[in-house]
Amino acid sequence: MLITLTTDFGLDDPFVAIMKGVILGRCPDVQLVDICHTIAPQDIAAASLQLSDAAPYFPADTLHVAVVDPGVGTSRRIICLKNNSQLFLAPDNGLLTPFLENAEAIFQVDNDRLFLQPVSDTFHGRDIFAPVAAALACGLNVQELGPEMQLNDLVCLQLLKPSVKQGCLQGQCLRADRFGNMTTNISKQDLDGFLGNNNAPVITLASTTITGLNHSYESEEDGAIVLINSSNKLEISIPGGNAAHELNLFPSTEVRISKKPIF
Amino acid sequence: MLITLTTDFGLDDPFVAIMKGVILGRCPDVQLVDICHTIAPQDIAAASLQLSDAAPYFPADTLHVAVVDPGVGTSRRIICLKNNSQLFLAPDNGLLTPFLENAEAIFQVDNDRLFLQPVSDTFHGRDIFAPVAAALACGLNVQELGPEMQLNDLVCLQLLKPSVKQGCLQGQCLRADRFGNMTTNISKQDLDGFLGNNNAPVITLASTTITGLNHSYESEEDGAIVLINSSNKLEISIPGGNAAHELNLFPSTEVRISKKPIF
Amino acid sequence: MLITLTTDFGLDDPFVAIMKGVILGRCPDVQLVDICHTIAPQDIAAASLQLSDAAPYFPADTLHVAVVDPGVGTSRRIICLKNNSQLFLAPDNGLLTPFLENAEAIFQVDNDRLFLQPVSDTFHGRDIFAPVAAALACGLNVQELGPEMQLNDLVCLQLLKPSVKQGCLQGQCLRADRFGNMTTNISKQDLDGFLGNNNAPVITLASTTITGLNHSYESEEDGAIVLINSSNKLEISIPGGNAAHELNLFPSTEVRISKKPIF
Repeated sequence: MLITLTTDFGLDDPFVAIMKGVILGRCPDVQLVDICHTIAPQDIAAASLQLSDAAPYFPADTLHVAVVDPGVGTSRRIICLKNNSQLFLAPDNGLLTPFLENAEAIFQVDNDRLFLQPVSDTFHGRDIFAPVAAALACGLNVQELGPEMQLNDLVCLQLLKPSVKQGCLQGQCLRADRFGNMTTNISKQDLDGFLGNNNAPVITLASTTITGLNHSYESEEDGAIVLINSSNKLEISIPGGNAAHELNLFPSTEVRISKKPIF
Repeated sequence: MLITLTTDFGLDDPFVAIMKGVILGRCPDVQLVDICHTIAPQDIAAASLQLSDAAPYFPADTLHVAVVDPGVGTSRRIICLKNNSQLFLAPDNGLLTPFLENAEAIFQVDNDRLFLQPVSDTFHGRDIFAPVAAALACGLNVQELGPEMQLNDLVCLQLLKPSVKQGCLQGQCLRADRFGNMTTNISKQDLDGFLGNNNAPVITLASTTITGLNHSYESEEDGAIVLINSSNKLEISIPGGNAAHELNLFPSTEVRISKKPIF
Repeated sequence: MLITLTTDFGLDDPFVAIMKGVILGRCPDVQLVDICHTIAPQDIAAASLQLSDAAPYFPADTLHVAVVDPGVGTSRRIICLKNNSQLFLAPDNGLLTPFLENAEAIFQVDNDRLFLQPVSDTFHGRDIFAPVAAALACGLNVQELGPEMQLNDLVCLQLLKPSVKQGCLQGQCLRADRFGNMTTNISKQDLDGFLGNNNAPVITLASTTITGLNHSYESEEDGAIVLINSSNKLEISIPGGNAAHELNLFPSTEVRISKKPIF
């Protein structure tokens, strides 16, 4: 079985390795893949975004473990979500929000016979997430984790969706990748629905206006372009440059799209 | 078999990958886990601390390979330490100091038939540590590595232990994790022994004084707290903040604890 | 089978993990090793250098996948190079230049039945490199990838070789490792050929002159030394210091060597 790990533990501390030690001690044949450990400390939304971008490309039966957990040691719950092919283990803090709409079942993880004892109040990644992940990888049925939960009982992130206001499609920047390409919360479907036929998009953000969509990072002219990226989202890029830096774009910078007829 | 790697080689150079290539070429079925590769260059004490935090959570038969090795190419020796369940391979420069008290046997690694030939003077990670680790993972008996060594023949780090002076328990800060939580060299046992019954600790460090111990990062008041962390050590934290930055704490900042009667 | 990955995707985005998900979904038993993902964005020459340093230490049958790909989504080709023991998959942008002289055969990768469909214009690592790598790891014959190519049909990096001018061997700095040790493009063979017998090298670079070669980082005097490093190249080092910073050395800083008779 394959287990992925997503945390805000960074790469300078032994925390991730400790989780791996606990998992491999209990389930030696599991294959471990790191999704990301440099999520900004406590940034639940960023972890959520990374995991929702990555999970669809992992095989059926993958177990995704995500520990961005500002509430460790408090009464916040831990949940295991099952969709039609994969499992997700995370704190009940909104991290799994993007997966709720396709959830088949969600269980509260409270079967403490599975935990490393004594359970510390400060490192549930080691004491709860890792041994529970190992148990699942070794074949434990999810129903053994604890009681089933109702969707409306869960903590949700308020994921801002783009909306149409005053004739414009309004969204926002989400995050820049290493190349300075800035992803937005506007999907290809959002854009197509707004534009209809025979219209090109005019994208305004910060002090920049860009007209039309590119198909790739290849551009005949210098300067910023807009395209639909590999996650199916509108992205602002400067080929050979760094759009986020050069255009002064940050997470939550507003993106406004109007229509321009194509003659 | 499981091999862990701890180095100061960083993530930007191919050195760690080269070690893995050598190991997997000789022992293809080994499972490799990175503990940390961003140890500050030549910081033997930091590597020692990371490894002693992580090793207990790895299964029996794990082989831990640690290469923080300012003496590479000199006459410094390489050692393999065996305790009751795991093996440790490192330079004889003090890195394994925390494991000496539970060592069952220590061998000098000088059987050069195991090495990659010719052995360079600058990269023993590749030429000695990796092939020796692979040989051990493939079943080589530790006694084949070289002659057994005596404890008092080894290089030791002077690990500062906390001490009681003028009625205070005095220790020091060790390192901050990514969240700014600062670990100290004072263990729960040190603290309990000092406080006895019916006393709360009053912790003074730099310009801050904190009274009492928290159980987790959950705190009803703003500001710094002190708790026993998941490595069983006294830790200074600012929930939602960064204690190291905000309180001006550095490795080796003094920590002084006095008693306050609980009525 | 063993697959290595070398990219400029960084460690903060999910791109590398997505490639791993695609590979493991199609070839679950493959062993994955990261060579480096922090190559500077679009730095083809740096990727080329890392891969040529690391590849020789991986076992026969290793497949090396390298994605530093400023031309993604353009008409640039993707190639698979086979030498006498390993396979290399990369864009046809010069990244594989160091491997051309020992190539046995090179194939253009254009069999789109192997690709993830639809192929995006922005993430061929996921849509082409990963599934093609998985197919090869699962036993696909390289000849199934596409037509064989001729060497002179490939994009090559102009790898600057050292040359003798006005009685001096002239080369340049390539890159500094984490310890500040600066590698040059001058090999042991270049140096031996230039010096002949009974001459010591006098190395001039930026404002520094160093005479003689050291065997290791061990030095009886303070200051900069020159040695042949573990990649068989001339390297400038300051033991216990950082040569690149202290001597003001950058990639492409000139290195000039003259001879001094040994009496």
